[in-house]
Amino acid sequence: MVDIIHKKREGGVLSEEEIRFWVEGYTRGEIPDYQVSALLMAILFRGMSPSETAALTLRMAASGEQVDLSAVPGVKVDKHSTGGVGDKTTLITGPIAAACGVPVAKMSGRGLGHTGGTLDKLEAIPGFRTTLEPERFLQIVRENGLSVIGQTRDIAPADKKLYALRDVTATVESLPLIASSIMSKKLAAGADAIVLDVKVGSGAFMKSESDARALAQEMVAIGERSGRRTVALITNMDVPLGHAVGNALEVREALETLRGGGEARLREVSLQLAANMLQLAGKGTLAECLSQAQAALESGRALEKFRGMVAAQGGDAAIADDPSRLPSAPCTRLVCAKADGFLSRIDTEACGLASCLLGAGRSRKEDAVDHGAGIVFAADYGQQVRAGDPLATLFTSRPEAFEEAERLVQEALILSPQRPPSQKLIYARVTADGVEEQ
Amino acid sequence: MVDIIHKKREGGVLSEEEIRFWVEGYTRGEIPDYQVSALLMAILFRGMSPSETAALTLRMAASGEQVDLSAVPGVKVDKHSTGGVGDKTTLITGPIAAACGVPVAKMSGRGLGHTGGTLDKLEAIPGFRTTLEPERFLQIVRENGLSVIGQTRDIAPADKKLYALRDVTATVESLPLIASSIMSKKLAAGADAIVLDVKVGSGAFMKSESDARALAQEMVAIGERSGRRTVALITNMDVPLGHAVGNALEVREALETLRGGGEARLREVSLQLAANMLQLAGKGTLAECLSQAQAALESGRALEKFRGMVAAQGGDAAIADDPSRLPSAPCTRLVCAKADGFLSRIDTEACGLASCLLGAGRSRKEDAVDHGAGIVFAADYGQQVRAGDPLATLFTSRPEAFEEAERLVQEALILSPQRPPSQKLIYARVTADGVEEQ
Repeated sequence: MVDIIHKKREGGVLSEEEIRFWVEGYTRGEIPDYQVSALLMAILFRGMSPSETAALTLRMAASGEQVDLSAVPGVKVDKHSTGGVGDKTTLITGPIAAACGVPVAKMSGRGLGHTGGTLDKLEAIPGFRTTLEPERFLQIVRENGLSVIGQTRDIAPADKKLYALRDVTATVESLPLIASSIMSKKLAAGADAIVLDVKVGSGAFMKSESDARALAQEMVAIGERSGRRTVALITNMDVPLGHAVGNALEVREALETLRGGGEARLREVSLQLAANMLQLAGKGTLAECLSQAQAALESGRALEKFRGMVAAQGGDAAIADDPSRLPSAPCTRLVCAKADGFLSRIDTEACGLASCLLGAGRSRKEDAVDHGAGIVFAADYGQQVRAGDPLATLFTSRPEAFEEAERLVQEALILSPQRPPSQKLIYARVTADGVEEQ
Repeated sequence: MVDIIHKKREGGVLSEEEIRFWVEGYTRGEIPDYQVSALLMAILFRGMSPSETAALTLRMAASGEQVDLSAVPGVKVDKHSTGGVGDKTTLITGPIAAACGVPVAKMSGRGLGHTGGTLDKLEAIPGFRTTLEPERFLQIVRENGLSVIGQTRDIAPADKKLYALRDVTATVESLPLIASSIMSKKLAAGADAIVLDVKVGSGAFMKSESDARALAQEMVAIGERSGRRTVALITNMDVPLGHAVGNALEVREALETLRGGGEARLREVSLQLAANMLQLAGKGTLAECLSQAQAALESGRALEKFRGMVAAQGGDAAIADDPSRLPSAPCTRLVCAKADGFLSRIDTEACGLASCLLGAGRSRKEDAVDHGAGIVFAADYGQQVRAGDPLATLFTSRPEAFEEAERLVQEALILSPQRPPSQKLIYARVTADGVEEQ
């Protein structure tokens, strides 16, 4: 192990055998934390070659359960977001893909900190079960084309152990380590192809567009080297997707989109992500796939798939037609503009934290979430408002949180005298062939 | 701690308070190995400023016992070598300094690997005790001006713990970490001034002259910032100092020098080191100090101090006049030149390993050493020899080691048809004022 650390420290390229040695040894507890943390710091300074990153990812993916989706016919496509505030696209893209004949067998995670998790959103639906026997999961996918469950504990345990170590040794911010961490779980989850939504902006893990591009390229390279067709869209998280932040509020908003309406940016990103899923599954050119996706939304077939999943997983399927059946927080407060102006900046991270305070998120893994809590924005980026106009509504079960949450939201929504420049929704599309600007 | 690692990782300068926090926390076992190893790797990449290196050194020195030499009047000067093969200069410089009125209260270490330790050499003298009560140690220094004992266990325990961690995390080769490790023990050992002999060459820790210069400058800077006047000589370890390698053999050779004779290079380096010790103690200009040192050798006063120390520490003082009383290994083998040529390269590291094989050194801390074993060279660097001429004599108690040791020595002594260029003995002298080429 000392030789391996030394080699990386001097900028060498570790062989597959060396990577296997330390990842397996560490997972089995044979190589101590203090040697691995020194190696991680050396990797942070020296980086990793594409072959090293791919080998590390494969080793981490192979460290635990590897889901076998072969019992489901067709090209299974996964969609993964690097995490944002109010990101409910999985609730829309999954049903669209399923409606277009692309099976989606997805394992999702819970939210932590200011970003939400798909699992929490789905559990806002009364009765919805996110823990299923593997056989039942695959049966739902075969019959309905779509099922979303919680990630099993044994997916990529090497990644879990390494991530915990990185967190306490200031070695989180290494691009190849971030990329391999995400991709190891995707590979173990068994999909044949992967569409990545790499968020960039205040509410995202990646704060700069160049970092997001580099991460997207790393992940696409890993996917392709591992035999999974992979595409990444780099999307804007400086402007929220849709108006709702908070679990039941987001399900409700996703249902609006699935019913053919909804906020324009959310609809557009969801369609683009879904079109890329269809394209990876061989359903035609990107333009053809986009038409299929639009048709799935407009015909109600996507909503039908969502309803099917809710019913199959024990949830109240009637919410699909009557969203008022979703839980709602008892206390609300209106946040109003204090001056005239154009809404010219939205600090999505601060909005995520405010939503967390209201009860919609958790700051520790053990915390429970309040499914009805959150924020619904009443004004869009660039919109002109007058003093006293509503900017947002806060929802909570603990009204003592209003004061601090309102302060955060007021500070997060910046009004200015000039109309702000319009913001791109999708910056770029990254494939194995390169980067296409959007 | 994560913030401290992160700060260093990003190239920041740690404050005294931050350094105190992690060194003390680590020594007390409150900060785990895995965080410190990540920090050490970040230090290896980012380096440390002079103020950080000095703060780390002081913290490590303060982590255990700090020897108080104030009971000994005068300026106490320590001489430290970074470790070489056949380096017996302490046995000569200590007596010279004492003879010139500069008290030497020295704590020395044992040898490990291919380099020897002064303690092992002294213990080759029948009866010589290297473990004394502190009171007795100081009494000998007051009365005789010279005593050398073993380093107590509690000198700089933080350094011991950090060194053990660096050894298994590929973080040994950081200049500020090496410098602070050496200097922390020197500071804790209590001398007022320090002369460093930084060896460079095949048998030394520093293989290149530029690394040795950088290390010397780091250590001098630490010493001066800690209020200890410090000078370093950078000396050649590509050519052995003297002819002997091995404990009793080296004591015998040191006695030759103390009696006014001995090999020229050994005598010259010892005189220069001693002159620098005298100069730091305020005994005059360097030239004046050199004269005093020479007079101490030639008058026999240095030998008298050596004899006094041996007697005071329970050893057989008669060895000073009759070195044949020193232990000698029963088996010898002559290594002869296989061809004509000039002795143009000596791999001193290989010679050290051969001496170790013969029994003179230890590969593990627990090993005992054979005081009579070792090598005596019969030919000097640059000397012309004919096939069949003796190159060296090997001494051992385990003749089964002859084969391998002879092979090593034959390979270590390179004969070539041309006379090799002469080699410098001392490359440079490093003081707080800068570097003087020699």
